[in-house]
Amino acid sequence: MLLLRRCHSLTRFGPLNTQRLQVAPAVASCAGRLWSSSSSSEDQRSYQRAHGPSWRHGLAGLLAGTGAVLAYGLHHHKAEQEDTIRVQALEKTSAFPIFSQEEVTSHRSLEDGVWVTYKGGVYDITEFVAMHPGGDKILLAAGGALEPFWALYAVHNQEHVLEMLSEYKVGELSAEDLKKQKTIQTSDPYSSDPERHPVLHINNLKPFNAEPPPEILSDSFITPSAFFFKRNHLPVPPVDPASYQLMVEGLPGGVLTLSLEELKTRFPKHTVTATLQCAGNRRSEMNKVKQVKGLNWGIAAISNATWSGARLRDVLLAAGYGPDVAQRALHVQFEGLDKDVTGTTYGASIPLNKAVSEEGDVLLAYEMNGADLPADHGYPVRVVVPGTVGARNVKWLGKIIVSADESSSHWQQNDYKGFSPGTDWDTVDFKSAPAIQELPIQSAITTPADGAVVDRSLEDVTVKGYAWSGGGREVVRVDVSLDGGKTWQVAQLKSSEKGQAPEPSPPPGRAWAWKLWEVTAPLPPEAQELEIVCKAVDNSYNMQPDTVAPIWNLRGVLSNAWHRVTVKIREDESEE
Amino acid sequence: MLLLRRCHSLTRFGPLNTQRLQVAPAVASCAGRLWSSSSSSEDQRSYQRAHGPSWRHGLAGLLAGTGAVLAYGLHHHKAEQEDTIRVQALEKTSAFPIFSQEEVTSHRSLEDGVWVTYKGGVYDITEFVAMHPGGDKILLAAGGALEPFWALYAVHNQEHVLEMLSEYKVGELSAEDLKKQKTIQTSDPYSSDPERHPVLHINNLKPFNAEPPPEILSDSFITPSAFFFKRNHLPVPPVDPASYQLMVEGLPGGVLTLSLEELKTRFPKHTVTATLQCAGNRRSEMNKVKQVKGLNWGIAAISNATWSGARLRDVLLAAGYGPDVAQRALHVQFEGLDKDVTGTTYGASIPLNKAVSEEGDVLLAYEMNGADLPADHGYPVRVVVPGTVGARNVKWLGKIIVSADESSSHWQQNDYKGFSPGTDWDTVDFKSAPAIQELPIQSAITTPADGAVVDRSLEDVTVKGYAWSGGGREVVRVDVSLDGGKTWQVAQLKSSEKGQAPEPSPPPGRAWAWKLWEVTAPLPPEAQELEIVCKAVDNSYNMQPDTVAPIWNLRGVLSNAWHRVTVKIREDESEE
Repeated sequence: MLLLRRCHSLTRFGPLNTQRLQVAPAVASCAGRLWSSSSSSEDQRSYQRAHGPSWRHGLAGLLAGTGAVLAYGLHHHKAEQEDTIRVQALEKTSAFPIFSQEEVTSHRSLEDGVWVTYKGGVYDITEFVAMHPGGDKILLAAGGALEPFWALYAVHNQEHVLEMLSEYKVGELSAEDLKKQKTIQTSDPYSSDPERHPVLHINNLKPFNAEPPPEILSDSFITPSAFFFKRNHLPVPPVDPASYQLMVEGLPGGVLTLSLEELKTRFPKHTVTATLQCAGNRRSEMNKVKQVKGLNWGIAAISNATWSGARLRDVLLAAGYGPDVAQRALHVQFEGLDKDVTGTTYGASIPLNKAVSEEGDVLLAYEMNGADLPADHGYPVRVVVPGTVGARNVKWLGKIIVSADESSSHWQQNDYKGFSPGTDWDTVDFKSAPAIQELPIQSAITTPADGAVVDRSLEDVTVKGYAWSGGGREVVRVDVSLDGGKTWQVAQLKSSEKGQAPEPSPPPGRAWAWKLWEVTAPLPPEAQELEIVCKAVDNSYNMQPDTVAPIWNLRGVLSNAWHRVTVKIREDESEE
Repeated sequence: MLLLRRCHSLTRFGPLNTQRLQVAPAVASCAGRLWSSSSSSEDQRSYQRAHGPSWRHGLAGLLAGTGAVLAYGLHHHKAEQEDTIRVQALEKTSAFPIFSQEEVTSHRSLEDGVWVTYKGGVYDITEFVAMHPGGDKILLAAGGALEPFWALYAVHNQEHVLEMLSEYKVGELSAEDLKKQKTIQTSDPYSSDPERHPVLHINNLKPFNAEPPPEILSDSFITPSAFFFKRNHLPVPPVDPASYQLMVEGLPGGVLTLSLEELKTRFPKHTVTATLQCAGNRRSEMNKVKQVKGLNWGIAAISNATWSGARLRDVLLAAGYGPDVAQRALHVQFEGLDKDVTGTTYGASIPLNKAVSEEGDVLLAYEMNGADLPADHGYPVRVVVPGTVGARNVKWLGKIIVSADESSSHWQQNDYKGFSPGTDWDTVDFKSAPAIQELPIQSAITTPADGAVVDRSLEDVTVKGYAWSGGGREVVRVDVSLDGGKTWQVAQLKSSEKGQAPEPSPPPGRAWAWKLWEVTAPLPPEAQELEIVCKAVDNSYNMQPDTVAPIWNLRGVLSNAWHRVTVKIREDESEE
């Protein structure tokens, strides 16, 4: 039934293609799909979703490197073998004309047609260009092989993408040119990514996205850099510190260029302890309500570190910032040195008033936890915007632009925004929501883990976790419940390493670091199971929402409902 | 049973008193209570609460003028008659010695004993002084009549207070002195309070606390001053604008004194549209979970006005504020000209960085909605602290003190703070929580009213309300549900008067004014009843909590759970 419906829906596209191709790709693709009907039902569902009116936006998110992509690298070899079998299977049912690379290369525009090759097949994707979730970028692949692009955007390595591609097949690449293509080794843009600590839980390998085990988080106020969650949008760029240059644009003094040495010596070194959190932290809880687009983060896409560097304010003043600038400029844009194949860099912006405020504490950081920034965290220079969502803390910083406008980057305009639970990919208007900057109040239970078993003989249970709020709002209280939220007790807050004196209270509006918390409570005598819940309060008395569903949003960001874990109590058998 | 328990508990106090008084007040009071057992069960419950370990804190809140007091003035005459009957009834059971006023007046200290008179009775309250919720202030009444104090602190006009007093009776005032006392008219400290608009719903008459009907609120972006909610803590002080003087202390330049004229002419006039909200707005919803201490505000202890005046920042700079001051000072304290009988003024403070920030927009306002401040709103000068809880927006401003310390006032230290739902009056430690400054995200439905009936023939229902967040955080979205929170739609936001162009977007962090919102939706065909819910989101993506119970707190402040109203749908009979 499902298969029939698919073939039916594809015939809508069929005539359009046949006019151009003189073959019947709809038939071919249905044939191909007859083969692929043995794939998992999950694949079928995701294919259906992808072909619904919402697939375009959905894929846009995925393409941006923020999607729940296959762990391309890990499974690369196996996937390659499977792809070849699949492509061969797709081809069995029809004979295609043979094209030379030269003929393919002559189709590089909408006027001449847009052709690409993939594993020896030739595809005319002219009609698809307008539908491509990643937009015009697809034209960069025109006339050539898709493989290097798909190595960068691993999201494409999915069954339904291959199925879509098969609809556009028009021929096969000559054996000679295919051989030539294969000799040009596809270089892996992620080949210079650094080694990572194996304890990290990898949500995506390329680009690298990983979080530490939650129980590690609450063991130290400062997260060791190796365990600090990693969230890259693109390959880690190798940067030579000797030739590194930071450009500052958009100010009356013209472009200011600073070497790493100048950044370190011309400006006072300022140190800030600040927590960074990914907008997608705790996304997995939203997925339980209804599937969202994005990496399936657990509760540990948040960490706390000490950052040192020049104050952005000081650098902007040196570059000519003054009150006159504030009359025309509203934003400070950042561009990373990490690039996609088109040369587009990662980008984001923050409000100008945050950037220039003496109390904003925005850093151009060159140290993390007292050492040079690690490669994964932006070596040699990154922006640290305390109190602000991770995505604006641009790593491998290349350029600063003071502007009347927000960053035009995908990540500022069409990602990292919150929407109503009633908004879906059909109705979403990204212009209607502000880019996430300050994050809302957050807390989670790091131990015990969900599903843990506690011995009755222990009498007490100790619950630990973290709490943090954006915008420099200090966490003033964490309430913990053992009975699903019926009764509450107040946890003890910690704002320093164990055994060390608590750090002095931060000035108002500058509480950038999280608080760890802990509560030890007697096991309720009658309970066989505990539903442990935590909720935090900041000094603006913002509270976390009770439940996930009413804050669900299609990108799965801003997941900050009460955190809940269920723990079983094992009765002491000797007592029975 | 209840009565027996009361008498039993009172015998604990009995011996203490009998030693001093040579009468048996416990027996007397139980006799009195036998009579009063006909009072309502609500009175009995509140009496019980008051005599539990928590009564002291409870009464402290009440005494501060923030309690759920009887509308003294309205019911004054009736209450006076009842009191007389009650006092007579209390006296029937024993013969007391007669004292002259001179003898009473000789007992004005803990050493000599503290005696007071009330309606002809003489009371030795020496032992009670340490237990008085209002503290040492009670000594001001020593040797004289309680009546003028109780006129000011109308909270005392309650059954259980009279019962407590009766325990301390030691005699009766001579008929001659009683007559003299009565000829000295008790002046009403509220006699110079202004006239108010009768549409206001009065939560407390003295001090005056009232809110407009909710449906008025959402009819205009700017709330007319007459309808703006009124929250006084003390009598409105009559201030002569010609002799008015504002003192600024704690700065290197010594004390700066400014006349009203100087304030208006020496500093630029600055205008801000800002919403003020009482910390107790929507307290009535918390009362439904469990009784709290405080005025039973509905959803309209919030209003929006245009305020004009000198910037506090400018005045502080003129008074000698500079960076050196920021090294030692952290707070700016305000004292009102409104006083209690002891001469203690209303007081509050705000963080120094808010006060001096160019973006803080703190005003010493002398105009509201384009006219002189009305008496109820602080004529001639009040502080307007945009984004901050109403209680810090001190009215009838007399003094500004730059200080290392917060205001020591009751309202800063022991009131207007939030606590865990698990914290009660036995366990509360007011030092453990920060004074409320910025308020959390808030919204409510102003129309339809809870319990309203909508005709099926109308086909659509229009829901209106307000939304606001503290700290200058802009409301970016309001979600409305007609099915109790299962599905949501996005409301239309309005930030100007109907028919006028929307005000330009405020600079980041300076969204001081609320947004009104509206949504029109078809009546669901099957529904017989709608549970309409609203929840707002600010640009830090803070959300309102789902339910009231988990944010319940003993003072009933910060009530910002989703607002819910239930509406019945009346079917069109002609269709049946």
